Amino acid sequence: MIPEVLRLDATAQAALIRNRELSASELVEASIAQIERFNPQINAIITPLYEGARRQALNPVDGAFMGVPLVLKDFMCQTAGDPYYAGMRYLRDLAWRSKADTYLARRFREAGFIFIGKSNLPELALSPTTEPLAFGATRNPYQLDHSAGGSSGGSAAAVATRMVAVAHANDGYGSIRIPASCCGLVGLKPSRGRISTGPAYSGGLLGNIVEFVVVRSVRDAANILQAIHGNMPGDLFVAPPLLTDPATGKTKLRVGLLTHDPFLPQDVHPDCVAAVEKTGKLLESVGHHVEYSYPPAFEGPTGLGLALRIISSSRLAASLDELAELTGKPITADDVEPATWQAAEEGRTFSAVQIHAAQRRLLNGICRTPEWWTNYDLLITPTMTQPPPPLGSDPAEHGLIFGLFCMAISVAGLPAISLPLHWTADDLPIGVQLVANLGREDLLLHIGAQLEQLASWADRVPALIS
Amino acid sequence: MIPEVLRLDATAQAALIRNRELSASELVEASIAQIERFNPQINAIITPLYEGARRQALNPVDGAFMGVPLVLKDFMCQTAGDPYYAGMRYLRDLAWRSKADTYLARRFREAGFIFIGKSNLPELALSPTTEPLAFGATRNPYQLDHSAGGSSGGSAAAVATRMVAVAHANDGYGSIRIPASCCGLVGLKPSRGRISTGPAYSGGLLGNIVEFVVVRSVRDAANILQAIHGNMPGDLFVAPPLLTDPATGKTKLRVGLLTHDPFLPQDVHPDCVAAVEKTGKLLESVGHHVEYSYPPAFEGPTGLGLALRIISSSRLAASLDELAELTGKPITADDVEPATWQAAEEGRTFSAVQIHAAQRRLLNGICRTPEWWTNYDLLITPTMTQPPPPLGSDPAEHGLIFGLFCMAISVAGLPAISLPLHWTADDLPIGVQLVANLGREDLLLHIGAQLEQLASWADRVPALIS
Repeated sequence: MIPEVLRLDATAQAALIRNRELSASELVEASIAQIERFNPQINAIITPLYEGARRQALNPVDGAFMGVPLVLKDFMCQTAGDPYYAGMRYLRDLAWRSKADTYLARRFREAGFIFIGKSNLPELALSPTTEPLAFGATRNPYQLDHSAGGSSGGSAAAVATRMVAVAHANDGYGSIRIPASCCGLVGLKPSRGRISTGPAYSGGLLGNIVEFVVVRSVRDAANILQAIHGNMPGDLFVAPPLLTDPATGKTKLRVGLLTHDPFLPQDVHPDCVAAVEKTGKLLESVGHHVEYSYPPAFEGPTGLGLALRIISSSRLAASLDELAELTGKPITADDVEPATWQAAEEGRTFSAVQIHAAQRRLLNGICRTPEWWTNYDLLITPTMTQPPPPLGSDPAEHGLIFGLFCMAISVAGLPAISLPLHWTADDLPIGVQLVANLGREDLLLHIGAQLEQLASWADRVPALIS
Repeated sequence: MIPEVLRLDATAQAALIRNRELSASELVEASIAQIERFNPQINAIITPLYEGARRQALNPVDGAFMGVPLVLKDFMCQTAGDPYYAGMRYLRDLAWRSKADTYLARRFREAGFIFIGKSNLPELALSPTTEPLAFGATRNPYQLDHSAGGSSGGSAAAVATRMVAVAHANDGYGSIRIPASCCGLVGLKPSRGRISTGPAYSGGLLGNIVEFVVVRSVRDAANILQAIHGNMPGDLFVAPPLLTDPATGKTKLRVGLLTHDPFLPQDVHPDCVAAVEKTGKLLESVGHHVEYSYPPAFEGPTGLGLALRIISSSRLAASLDELAELTGKPITADDVEPATWQAAEEGRTFSAVQIHAAQRRLLNGICRTPEWWTNYDLLITPTMTQPPPPLGSDPAEHGLIFGLFCMAISVAGLPAISLPLHWTADDLPIGVQLVANLGREDLLLHIGAQLEQLASWADRVPALIS
């Protein structure tokens, strides 16, 4: 049985606290009890922050989410004085702690959230499944021997098991949307530049790495985005203004469906195709114009794979260098997972010229789809090409299984949301990705709320905890 | 004697045409006559487009600048079917022509501008002085043996000699502001992402390369920005919304003055210091709060020089590769200027990891000045550290003479305007750079107009043409 308050979304929890029907301390204790009960099986939380949470709950900050517990992914968003491992044994063995709050941590605090723990992720968020050697795998709450997705897998599993209503997450190539898809959650990846990644720059060469949360309701995504979006002076990327009036959403939207993989000759699983087709029918039933269409730039030899490998692996090598400089302890092959070391070593072989060429290739190719967006408001794709795979799957196949649809959208900087609109016969969640043009999160949230009404997933709970 | 209509700014020229007091053809003929008369001495225009201009003038497009002649810098902004050399003998010998209009060319056309010629620039816009081997030096209209600045030196000289009221220009590290300063013009460098550089991406890794114009009046800068700003879907960088209501400018601004070089131990010329101090006094006289202050991040070992060399030289090498692919003709050492080849060869030695490290160093360093901008609205610096140097100066000293103040601001993506607020005893113009926080061109234009009233430069004309 799930305690009633943990069934609620963050918006409802905050309302109870504001109306004094529930205290922040009661909610924090309920969260802690749920974590203690299910974390041994799920391994979502790797660093409890109970003491600090209990202290904060006594005097919660008066923001829109006053007193609502939140799990922090142990990556990027940092909180002064708390342990920070980024999925690395190297940092854990150093007992590393963050020196200062980042922009987002400050915004979470100002919104009234209470940090209750830190969640598991693959080492340096490099994989679409959460199976770090140092901290062990996070298990999918719907099927314990399956992946919870990644890299924000711990956060997604925590929200799916109702430990919390909100968990911080970030997404460079799908790391919000993939675990949301695997765990039956709402995963909004905001536009490039919507939320500052400052002050230490961490947004990637293309601004593709963005911060946000995973949640269970569309209104939570909307309300939290409203509470924490914004920039710091010095940010490289700035999103167009956030539109919040639902009336800005047209009544009748032009929607393109994509159900095959236009990049590679791989099959898309029938359940993933069915999820998109079902979504198209739902949208048609409420008056939207739906047809099969997608940006032509997605087709043919896009060079996406090689370009991303050049940019990402060299960035990884630079990050290891920077981390070693920060800690004062050199990083050797023994300090990181073999796949991490191998990718970084490959990254060191690329030239600066190749970076520029890769950037140009991407920006002049798959990112450049002006005509399509003139004719359409939304693109709908599967979030993943396959259902959540079993733990221990071959990493070589991860890119294919997980995130090709997500990756292309990340590189283009577009906002996208994964919604839990389908389940397999085995009760594994299948996400559907809705994509809008830059800056148009409002359309995603508007249509997301419509779909939530048509196909409510609020009562869908993993059998494990029900 | 300058024909009366050529003394006017573009806003006034457009009003005459709209009110049918002047025809576009008459204005185009006056421009052509002025070019024919002074270009032999100045060498501002390298490709006349008279035939097309005369044809366009018969049926000008009904935009805000209907019928106003404009000179295009022969770089980045491309017009379908017209010659395009980018300052290179290599492209001239191929008789290269642009295949399509870029975004900005379309916007210029829609605004009613008539393309009357293409202006000179250093090869591939690589130098802060316009002295390409293939096309010869552009001369400063105020002193023919001095530099007109660069890389938009041809455009600036054309506007200073009243060949046109508006010339297209672009600025990666100062290429709008430096020639504006050298030629006594108004040179606004818009915010990163204010004007699309699409569809072929050309904005640089940091979005530091921006498109705009050089003009003679602040209102021209404001009106043209209003007419042509905007983005295409797929643009990597997007500026915050353009604020246009002068009322958004506070009555009393907080202004910081910077009169020494905080980056390097070099002297700033007394005339450049005097120009800034004079500007401070003018602003104080109309009620603004002025004091000596600048972002602390500008001080100490910023790594600016090396980081920019890594990013720029490798980008140059990538551009040569791309150009060779486009034309189908390999580029060898004999095809470009020795300095170009040398820089590109150095660029090929840098690694991809170095690019990431350089970007981080800049973004976490000189770009990250949140506290300063919380306390100030405007930063005022000399545009250059020295007056316009003689032609043929040692290129090794160019970086110092020209653009250190400009470079730092370019990397930070901030909007800045160079205003002609001072002249040396030898009648050489000295520009003053006003810098605002990201997206705040409105403040620059508001204060620029105030300064223009206090210290009008409209009647200041090179002796050569007066």
